[in-house]
Amino acid sequence: MNFIRNFTKTLLIPRITYGLRLYSTPSQLLINEEQGIRTITLNNLKTRNALSLEMLTELEEALTRPSVDLRCIILCAAGKVFSAGHNLKELTSADGRSHHQIVFDNCSSMMLKIQQLPVPVIAKVNGIAAAAGCQLVASCDIVVATENSSFSTPGGSVGIFCSTPGIPLVRCVPRKVAAHMLLTGLPISAPEALQAGLISKMVSEADLDAEVGRVALAISSKSKSVMALGKKFMYEQMDMNIQEAYQAGSCVMVNNINMNDGQEGIDSFIKKRKPVWSHSED
Amino acid sequence: MNFIRNFTKTLLIPRITYGLRLYSTPSQLLINEEQGIRTITLNNLKTRNALSLEMLTELEEALTRPSVDLRCIILCAAGKVFSAGHNLKELTSADGRSHHQIVFDNCSSMMLKIQQLPVPVIAKVNGIAAAAGCQLVASCDIVVATENSSFSTPGGSVGIFCSTPGIPLVRCVPRKVAAHMLLTGLPISAPEALQAGLISKMVSEADLDAEVGRVALAISSKSKSVMALGKKFMYEQMDMNIQEAYQAGSCVMVNNINMNDGQEGIDSFIKKRKPVWSHSED
Amino acid sequence: MNFIRNFTKTLLIPRITYGLRLYSTPSQLLINEEQGIRTITLNNLKTRNALSLEMLTELEEALTRPSVDLRCIILCAAGKVFSAGHNLKELTSADGRSHHQIVFDNCSSMMLKIQQLPVPVIAKVNGIAAAAGCQLVASCDIVVATENSSFSTPGGSVGIFCSTPGIPLVRCVPRKVAAHMLLTGLPISAPEALQAGLISKMVSEADLDAEVGRVALAISSKSKSVMALGKKFMYEQMDMNIQEAYQAGSCVMVNNINMNDGQEGIDSFIKKRKPVWSHSED
Repeated sequence: MNFIRNFTKTLLIPRITYGLRLYSTPSQLLINEEQGIRTITLNNLKTRNALSLEMLTELEEALTRPSVDLRCIILCAAGKVFSAGHNLKELTSADGRSHHQIVFDNCSSMMLKIQQLPVPVIAKVNGIAAAAGCQLVASCDIVVATENSSFSTPGGSVGIFCSTPGIPLVRCVPRKVAAHMLLTGLPISAPEALQAGLISKMVSEADLDAEVGRVALAISSKSKSVMALGKKFMYEQMDMNIQEAYQAGSCVMVNNINMNDGQEGIDSFIKKRKPVWSHSED
Repeated sequence: MNFIRNFTKTLLIPRITYGLRLYSTPSQLLINEEQGIRTITLNNLKTRNALSLEMLTELEEALTRPSVDLRCIILCAAGKVFSAGHNLKELTSADGRSHHQIVFDNCSSMMLKIQQLPVPVIAKVNGIAAAAGCQLVASCDIVVATENSSFSTPGGSVGIFCSTPGIPLVRCVPRKVAAHMLLTGLPISAPEALQAGLISKMVSEADLDAEVGRVALAISSKSKSVMALGKKFMYEQMDMNIQEAYQAGSCVMVNNINMNDGQEGIDSFIKKRKPVWSHSED
Repeated sequence: MNFIRNFTKTLLIPRITYGLRLYSTPSQLLINEEQGIRTITLNNLKTRNALSLEMLTELEEALTRPSVDLRCIILCAAGKVFSAGHNLKELTSADGRSHHQIVFDNCSSMMLKIQQLPVPVIAKVNGIAAAAGCQLVASCDIVVATENSSFSTPGGSVGIFCSTPGIPLVRCVPRKVAAHMLLTGLPISAPEALQAGLISKMVSEADLDAEVGRVALAISSKSKSVMALGKKFMYEQMDMNIQEAYQAGSCVMVNNINMNDGQEGIDSFIKKRKPVWSHSED
């Protein structure tokens, strides 16, 4: 399997310059980076932003492109479908098990990458997120969605239970909600998703840009290295028991306080002035 | 203890024919099966559907009766009390510790069985679910309840803390809600239960049958073997860390896709026709 | 580190009589105990009830003071800020890493103690709970808050990510809410906190005393030893998988039933009389 994955990765031949490395121009995405905020737009209306192998590969690349100034990533979509999930045409028996395995390995890798990135990833949702599209939303750190959005895991209706979409889903919402979604395939509305905790904030379509901007600004005005340390520990401690979490947490806090940006923050607070971050890891 | 449990089980002598096996006629339940949907009704108004040892034993039997056509189970209750919990008259010192142990071993076994069954179990609640009655609701995969229903774990008031009802409860609702219920014994209303995630959907009494029917139909129209695979993995992956879950999940997806009903589903989707399930495990 | 912690503890020289031991008069707290209900009031308006090392030490002492009659603890605060979190003036580089370590070790110890206490601890919140102040709220068993309260983990804004406040927070609220709070530092309102499960009950300011009284009475009218057993197992079973939890839970129930107060409760229920608790552990 390692062979297969390495093989897939080398299919992507870097072509255009981006910082020091070369990257291919994505065909499925729009990418924009301004003032430390990278916006990645799923942009294939024809397939309803299906998470084809090409889309998955481009997404992982777009998420992980190094950039010194990067502070946060916004993930959004063109059209009224955020993403309809996997491209079923890639999953017929004609493609064979090894191809199916490549698709799901790449999908899992990309979903996990979001959590592993040192910068927060915000899903900006205005429409339908279904199956692996719902998984993508559930995998982001923060979700801001319009009140007209909806979320579903309807795979069972086409004979493919949404087992992998269920992985981040059951970690976001109560079991009775997750089981209802996964076992019936019926969608939940944005208000239901807000109540269940699948989305962080619900806004009107008119307010979506402003709300996402507010979240992105709150993140990008902080120290990059402090945010990286904080996001990493936030996910690590979730899987510990509470005693272990506190043992590790005290060390994390003491280290954070003794970073340059920790002391800069405290000093700025005491002296009632604006902090000037070094973003240094020291 | 194994001896004790085996002894209990043999007390239930199968008497009437049901498929190939013989079963006793339940005295505490009504059982009906139509079009793949088995409806089990708790039916002892006199004890407010108390989960006596007899009720527990009959419930486990009713849940696990084999049936080729079975697609989902609806669990409901006659009267305005879904279930008032254990029968305290069975738990006096006159009965002795070994009898108490039998009661709780049977109770735990039945509650766990719901999760282990290959078909989804829907709780249809219209009334009061208290103590082990609340545990029974929390143990079902999906819960549809009327807005007049209420839920409580009041055992502490009679000197028996609801420790076992707390097991599924803390896995369904936020800790602050579970602790409030368990430590005070005070009930929560259906809207509070919906907000907390204890119930999947809340409806008016007039809409209860229709809503449960909609859920049951959504389930029963899918492939039995795909649903069995999906439900099993949904619970398994909850207890894994997310990396392990994805590792296992990719395999589950690839296996699902290569099942007859996986390929039938994809083919039907691509060709825009209705799928015809084999329900085969291959 | 053991040396450091022991050293800190011995700084607190017991001075006044309380039961058999001697205690210093707290300078940061008001303590009152009546009819089994101990009320601890954070009382330093000047620092907005900052969790200074002195406050942390006094809090742990106030929580753990032995008292035969104690049934539950109410934690509240003077002024419109429940607590603003750590005292940043204690965390400058001038104090040194070993002092920082003492502060966080004491903080973690006190937060964990709440969960370990045999009596329930109710947070009574009417105002702002920020950073470690939010952690303190999230660490209590039950939270009753007014609709004007708000909750935030804004440490990142001063270069200190709220890593330890995040420990109880992610165990109380959905991930998308916790991540939003921790990564942006933006506050959530009481209705949002109720929806997320951070608070058990939300009331108007006028109703706060009555609601907290209702919760405290519900707890204090029960058997002390039964509540101790119940609270202990409630937290233990959360960290088990469900099979282990049921295995342990059956034993806990059988032991509970065979306690004096277990049988007293059942007997009182059957005979329709008020129970008279011995509060004995037998």
